[in-house]
Amino acid sequence: MAGNSFGNILRLTTWGESHGPAIGCVLDGFPAGMDLCEEDIQVYLDKRKPGQSQLTTQRKESDTVKILSGVFDGKTTGTPISLYIANSDQHSNDYRELADCFRPGHADFGYFEKYGIRDYRGGGRSSARETACRVAAGAIAEKFLKELGISFRFYTAAIGNVVMDPAHFAPDLLYATPTNMPDAEGSRQAEALIQSCRENKDSVGGMVRGVISGVPAGIGDPVYGRLDAKLAEAMMSINASKEVGIGDGLFAGSHFGSQNNDAFYTDENGIIRTRTNHAGGILGGISNGADIVISTAFKPTPSIASPQETVMTDGTPKALSIHGRHDPCVVPRAVVVCETMSALVILDAMLLNMTAKADSVRSFYKNLQSGSGEEPGTTESEES
Amino acid sequence: MAGNSFGNILRLTTWGESHGPAIGCVLDGFPAGMDLCEEDIQVYLDKRKPGQSQLTTQRKESDTVKILSGVFDGKTTGTPISLYIANSDQHSNDYRELADCFRPGHADFGYFEKYGIRDYRGGGRSSARETACRVAAGAIAEKFLKELGISFRFYTAAIGNVVMDPAHFAPDLLYATPTNMPDAEGSRQAEALIQSCRENKDSVGGMVRGVISGVPAGIGDPVYGRLDAKLAEAMMSINASKEVGIGDGLFAGSHFGSQNNDAFYTDENGIIRTRTNHAGGILGGISNGADIVISTAFKPTPSIASPQETVMTDGTPKALSIHGRHDPCVVPRAVVVCETMSALVILDAMLLNMTAKADSVRSFYKNLQSGSGEEPGTTESEES
Amino acid sequence: MAGNSFGNILRLTTWGESHGPAIGCVLDGFPAGMDLCEEDIQVYLDKRKPGQSQLTTQRKESDTVKILSGVFDGKTTGTPISLYIANSDQHSNDYRELADCFRPGHADFGYFEKYGIRDYRGGGRSSARETACRVAAGAIAEKFLKELGISFRFYTAAIGNVVMDPAHFAPDLLYATPTNMPDAEGSRQAEALIQSCRENKDSVGGMVRGVISGVPAGIGDPVYGRLDAKLAEAMMSINASKEVGIGDGLFAGSHFGSQNNDAFYTDENGIIRTRTNHAGGILGGISNGADIVISTAFKPTPSIASPQETVMTDGTPKALSIHGRHDPCVVPRAVVVCETMSALVILDAMLLNMTAKADSVRSFYKNLQSGSGEEPGTTESEES
Amino acid sequence: MAGNSFGNILRLTTWGESHGPAIGCVLDGFPAGMDLCEEDIQVYLDKRKPGQSQLTTQRKESDTVKILSGVFDGKTTGTPISLYIANSDQHSNDYRELADCFRPGHADFGYFEKYGIRDYRGGGRSSARETACRVAAGAIAEKFLKELGISFRFYTAAIGNVVMDPAHFAPDLLYATPTNMPDAEGSRQAEALIQSCRENKDSVGGMVRGVISGVPAGIGDPVYGRLDAKLAEAMMSINASKEVGIGDGLFAGSHFGSQNNDAFYTDENGIIRTRTNHAGGILGGISNGADIVISTAFKPTPSIASPQETVMTDGTPKALSIHGRHDPCVVPRAVVVCETMSALVILDAMLLNMTAKADSVRSFYKNLQSGSGEEPGTTESEES
Repeated sequence: MAGNSFGNILRLTTWGESHGPAIGCVLDGFPAGMDLCEEDIQVYLDKRKPGQSQLTTQRKESDTVKILSGVFDGKTTGTPISLYIANSDQHSNDYRELADCFRPGHADFGYFEKYGIRDYRGGGRSSARETACRVAAGAIAEKFLKELGISFRFYTAAIGNVVMDPAHFAPDLLYATPTNMPDAEGSRQAEALIQSCRENKDSVGGMVRGVISGVPAGIGDPVYGRLDAKLAEAMMSINASKEVGIGDGLFAGSHFGSQNNDAFYTDENGIIRTRTNHAGGILGGISNGADIVISTAFKPTPSIASPQETVMTDGTPKALSIHGRHDPCVVPRAVVVCETMSALVILDAMLLNMTAKADSVRSFYKNLQSGSGEEPGTTESEES
Repeated sequence: MAGNSFGNILRLTTWGESHGPAIGCVLDGFPAGMDLCEEDIQVYLDKRKPGQSQLTTQRKESDTVKILSGVFDGKTTGTPISLYIANSDQHSNDYRELADCFRPGHADFGYFEKYGIRDYRGGGRSSARETACRVAAGAIAEKFLKELGISFRFYTAAIGNVVMDPAHFAPDLLYATPTNMPDAEGSRQAEALIQSCRENKDSVGGMVRGVISGVPAGIGDPVYGRLDAKLAEAMMSINASKEVGIGDGLFAGSHFGSQNNDAFYTDENGIIRTRTNHAGGILGGISNGADIVISTAFKPTPSIASPQETVMTDGTPKALSIHGRHDPCVVPRAVVVCETMSALVILDAMLLNMTAKADSVRSFYKNLQSGSGEEPGTTESEES
Repeated sequence: MAGNSFGNILRLTTWGESHGPAIGCVLDGFPAGMDLCEEDIQVYLDKRKPGQSQLTTQRKESDTVKILSGVFDGKTTGTPISLYIANSDQHSNDYRELADCFRPGHADFGYFEKYGIRDYRGGGRSSARETACRVAAGAIAEKFLKELGISFRFYTAAIGNVVMDPAHFAPDLLYATPTNMPDAEGSRQAEALIQSCRENKDSVGGMVRGVISGVPAGIGDPVYGRLDAKLAEAMMSINASKEVGIGDGLFAGSHFGSQNNDAFYTDENGIIRTRTNHAGGILGGISNGADIVISTAFKPTPSIASPQETVMTDGTPKALSIHGRHDPCVVPRAVVVCETMSALVILDAMLLNMTAKADSVRSFYKNLQSGSGEEPGTTESEES
Repeated sequence: MAGNSFGNILRLTTWGESHGPAIGCVLDGFPAGMDLCEEDIQVYLDKRKPGQSQLTTQRKESDTVKILSGVFDGKTTGTPISLYIANSDQHSNDYRELADCFRPGHADFGYFEKYGIRDYRGGGRSSARETACRVAAGAIAEKFLKELGISFRFYTAAIGNVVMDPAHFAPDLLYATPTNMPDAEGSRQAEALIQSCRENKDSVGGMVRGVISGVPAGIGDPVYGRLDAKLAEAMMSINASKEVGIGDGLFAGSHFGSQNNDAFYTDENGIIRTRTNHAGGILGGISNGADIVISTAFKPTPSIASPQETVMTDGTPKALSIHGRHDPCVVPRAVVVCETMSALVILDAMLLNMTAKADSVRSFYKNLQSGSGEEPGTTESEES
């Protein structure tokens, strides 16, 4: 409602400003009894951590996460999981000049118009630093989804005009190149482009593609609760994203029905599948069991060192050259943000889906009563 | 939560199946005291009404709306506005054959997997007929936004490979061509393409573009409540939509920051504006006062008369040719759906925005007490 | 949010004014596959229907419910269930006099101050007629809860100073006396009191008690999602209710811990129970398996025929005697409203509870996979 | 939804366990531009701080609050306010014995049944220590409400059978006696009763009464959004509360309409008031401008040192005497919890109320435009 929460049964609330003492989040509604430790989360945070290569901002942040609640004896307890990440390497002085002017392409002006006050240091709340909280919380959701047999392949699909050739996709290169483009040659070209942007005091955009495998058919809700609507909302809520497509996305607009429909067939295990996957795994807002495919386009980093025209808070003109420390391209670090946000969406939808059938409710409560070791109702008590 | 509601302060809940007795909706949270009659809504419904030309399904529905509550003496009362649209021209027999099989590209399979039961008649709840309720409710929001000086220009920007030349945009042709493409020549070509699809027992996709002018700067919320995230969710929740972009959208991904940033300047009236509008009126999720630009791509209608491969509920193969009555292209009728959905998003965000500043709250309640005619707190009482 | 919806996974939205064409509601999130017909709902509506005895308003309403959506082939489909109840016996002329004045003890003044406009006919939206929608929707929830082995005993516990002796409780008299007090002698006395109120142009209050048996231990949520908090909210949202207690309620305030604690023991079936039930079945907001006991106090009907002091809309004084048709006591008809509202709360909490344990989620999805190729509706029941 | 959040536009999410490293909360949706410092919050926390007298638990907690976000240059920014309170004086060893058994009257059993795992140390999440977060967040809401001319008088109205005589109410003794009963003599008696409970290894319940003055008429929402329903939910969500009443509450049930109705009149300033206030300031769920009066009954502390019958996790019987450190009566410390929770409810309703009238929306946005070019933060205040 007020903007800093996301999800329904599984609900994330994040807080914190770029140059405050810390940032953090509360993940509520996560099921009890999953093994969880800080390292499970840290591995994801390390994928978006700044200062790892010349391609990213030189701000150094360990982004070390602390679990403050919701975990006991190494297991989630069902109570809110509070995560805390200290801010350590703020250079607020870099932002003094920005206190009274609006950076082109940034949220400064809108926040000021809305609230009449803004924390200009590092963009305050509008800083992409907030995405560290999404990654931390989403890592917990993704860990559980992996236990349920769901896998994620998110990567940089394009940087500027360097578009990865799908034929070159190398699974073993996921998160293994400086650009997070899983294609050695493509990544080298993208890297060169980003470097030239840095030298030209410029920046560049790109695209993140995600493929989620193993989501069962039937996940998602009708009408406004569509799984693709929730994924689009999630991706478009990430800093700098400007477009989201599912499956063939935009291209479906120029296709004929005879090209775009995915024929159904039954495989050797009696499972209903589609011959093609133009739909990207979602039909009518509900998963059909095929891979879910999401593409998100990101604009170039608005903070550039070359001079730009802007105005002061009082409206007087100003010529601005932004110094500070910024990524010439947000895409490499955005990959894990898209991945973990999608995990939050999928798990939330899967939790809600458990209540979709009267028979599911009946058997859940019948098992709870009968209470033999086999059934869901009581396997849990064996944990103790 | 359960999928059939949308919005926060202004909340829409829709109900009804394609071949049930009726469809309808409840719009809750709409401010009291706006003039409203059924005709105000009907003009919008008539823009999506089927059976108006050879380009659309031949199903004849008057789509006559009845207001059942929330309006008294010609004014909204602040209580829920219940709208009712009877279904009149169902041909359920057309769907008998579909009772036991899954139509490629349709929601049938997902709904069946999720719920274990489905109303196969005309797609039941997954039918695009539900969008009539969005249009009816959104029409009320749009009427109010127009009173607030906000205007909407939504139109067909492409049908298949017929892409409208922006230079040909003719405002007076909005909703005035059979394709809803406001370009006489482009529309003729698009019309020809749709006709050929019908003859080829095929269908085609396209794109709707929307431009919203007059939204003040400062509308939208941080992080997950971003105005663009809410618009993306809204557009992606519309049947057959597959991609949503804001401003330059996808193209921002291939641009450099120096191209993509919109410089700020102060106009002759002392209003801060941007020289360009690559951002599409939204930065950091909050409006900047420039036109809000949204593009939504729609897939081709999945119901086509040519034979397709599919399976029965029990998994056995089936060759299917869909008869019934279907639009060979959903785009022309989707225009007003996109327009009215965006109105619901914008008004909801503008209502929430009223509480963003402590000073706004202070003056609202100070005025309520002081009660002189000039202030918001009491102008209302003059209604009586 | 805007006030006319209730619940989370199971969400009710009601609409309609006392003297509009109809009232109705939408129940979203109800599980698919439960048998449901209009008669299942009508039997509950008939328990609150007016005009059945001298004790209630003489307004005659058949309160016949129509199901407009969400049910197919006699089963719920998981899509929104839209219920419609026509208004038939409005005497709006009775209310002309009330158009410009505020009835003491009524919502008139508050609605006018809030909205600046009000439908004065029969109280418009603030009329207790709205509770028919709660009963209709709650009847559906209660039907399902009964299938799950949960039973409800709600009754009139007091009318004015006529307090039912718990020792006289006669289960076979539930809903079988004109006062809905299941005690022949107590009911006679209460009836006499209500009659004397009618003769004295006065009205009287009372209390409804409810006992819900069979709710498993572990239902409800921590902190703000407490089951007792949700029940209190539900009861206090019913017209004319002024106090809600759980278990010993108020009396717990004057007790010692040694009196109030309910000792735990294990019964012959190995089930953990409590020796007493001062807590009313809820501890820390979560059910403990004992009977849930709720008491709700209702004020006397504010509409009385004897003269009262009040003011006109413009503030000028007025002496008012309310004619129209009103219940001298709301309690008898409130019983089924409390019962069905509690059913909505319990079912919503039980649905959410299915997601509380990671092991429940794991086994749900494990079974879904193992069940592939078979009729999804029954996959789960194979667990047992 | 998942239970740890409360409110709509103004939304509180709390986290933390009694014996974890810290507890805290996030308050989202608070308007921007209010002066706020930690001391503003601390004064409220100090009112519930344990270890201040023999009447309360001897656990020593400074309950020092840190503001981690949402405040810049001493003003709220409109972004989430994150509050952090370290836990310092845990004696977890006191709870070892409780790891495998269920304390009578406590949430232990319910949490274990629901989640299959529980943090038994100090009750974990179910500990009343969570209420410190409610107080911290509610203090911020109350500060703002006071600026708006709304005042709060909450106090201990009864401890066991020691019921304060309203005639003895001494405003200057609010929060000034060890029992928080603002009546010197009554407080002495209550204190003696609590002391005797401690000596008898027993505990006792009581009641908190609250009076909120200055809430304008028209606050609250229809049907399920009733202000009294929200207050009842809020009070019943506080640990150990068992009953909530508004105005005359329970007594209204035994009254006649002619006694219970509050006559309207117009005062010398032309303001419409009521002669009496049986309704407790709320009619039909909406405020009428009179004092809002809430009474909440609390059960005796379940943790008592005298031996009790209970069972182990595995169901085997156990005789339990609870040592640890506990309040023999929760009421004195519950007063400020009730007060601040009510502030959250009232402010949330007042924020939503700003959108109730179309004219309010019109003038808000008209003023926003007229104010363009000037400092947005003050535009509105120019209205007055």
